[in-house]
Amino acid sequence: MNEFMNEAILEAKKGLMEGGIPIGAVLVKGNVIIGRGHNKRVQENSAILHAEIDCLENAGRLTANNYKECVLYSTLSPCSMCSGAIVLYKIPKVIIGENETFKGAEDYMKSKGVKITNLDLKECKDLMKKFIKEKPSLWNEDIGV
Amino acid sequence: MNEFMNEAILEAKKGLMEGGIPIGAVLVKGNVIIGRGHNKRVQENSAILHAEIDCLENAGRLTANNYKECVLYSTLSPCSMCSGAIVLYKIPKVIIGENETFKGAEDYMKSKGVKITNLDLKECKDLMKKFIKEKPSLWNEDIGV
Repeated sequence: MNEFMNEAILEAKKGLMEGGIPIGAVLVKGNVIIGRGHNKRVQENSAILHAEIDCLENAGRLTANNYKECVLYSTLSPCSMCSGAIVLYKIPKVIIGENETFKGAEDYMKSKGVKITNLDLKECKDLMKKFIKEKPSLWNEDIGV
Repeated sequence: MNEFMNEAILEAKKGLMEGGIPIGAVLVKGNVIIGRGHNKRVQENSAILHAEIDCLENAGRLTANNYKECVLYSTLSPCSMCSGAIVLYKIPKVIIGENETFKGAEDYMKSKGVKITNLDLKECKDLMKKFIKEKPSLWNEDIGV
């Protein structure tokens, strides 16, 4: 298991324990985690705090030369909003836990030069499958369906 | 002048008075403003609170059937993150103040069926031109350059 993906999964589990949607993310620069976060739709009553957005916010205000050395890890394929944030800040590499439950705007990211690696992890899929089965309307709200 | 764009401009001016980046947005459903916001990079020390994102957050958690009846007004062409949020929530119509200062991910939105109207307003351009001239590095930070 990739150590940084493991940290993203810990974030997802933290979110689940809080009653939220189990998706987590970490931002890594030079092998150091400089930001971490998880989906906070329920916890903060937020329409925008997807895991990746929460992670980028927690990393703080950075200049472009910082982002270009970063790798973003997310337990799930980033939606169009999160993909757009990755494109905005020109984060060159994204590593995802899975894209079976939900496939975000991977094609858009790729068209902008972002390299995506899918680890296709059962643990990430199981977290989401259980959650979606239990709270389908919450999940639909989160992805605008 | 479009009355809702005028409200977005008021948001932009509010941001400027707070020492921030002068971009504003409002979300309108059935001719009623249901969310409003402005860029809060400086004010909230935020990497994610662009005007449109702040506006969507202030509109609160909505289901897809609400977003599909909305129009988003923004004083500036939405960046890839904000465009991605518009695509995520399937907001069908976006009205922008201008795209001369900065042209965001309009092509991406269009490819997803979003209708974009550019009002090409001198007032919006003047706000941004003056701001960018005074604080170029802050502007570059906001658009990941």
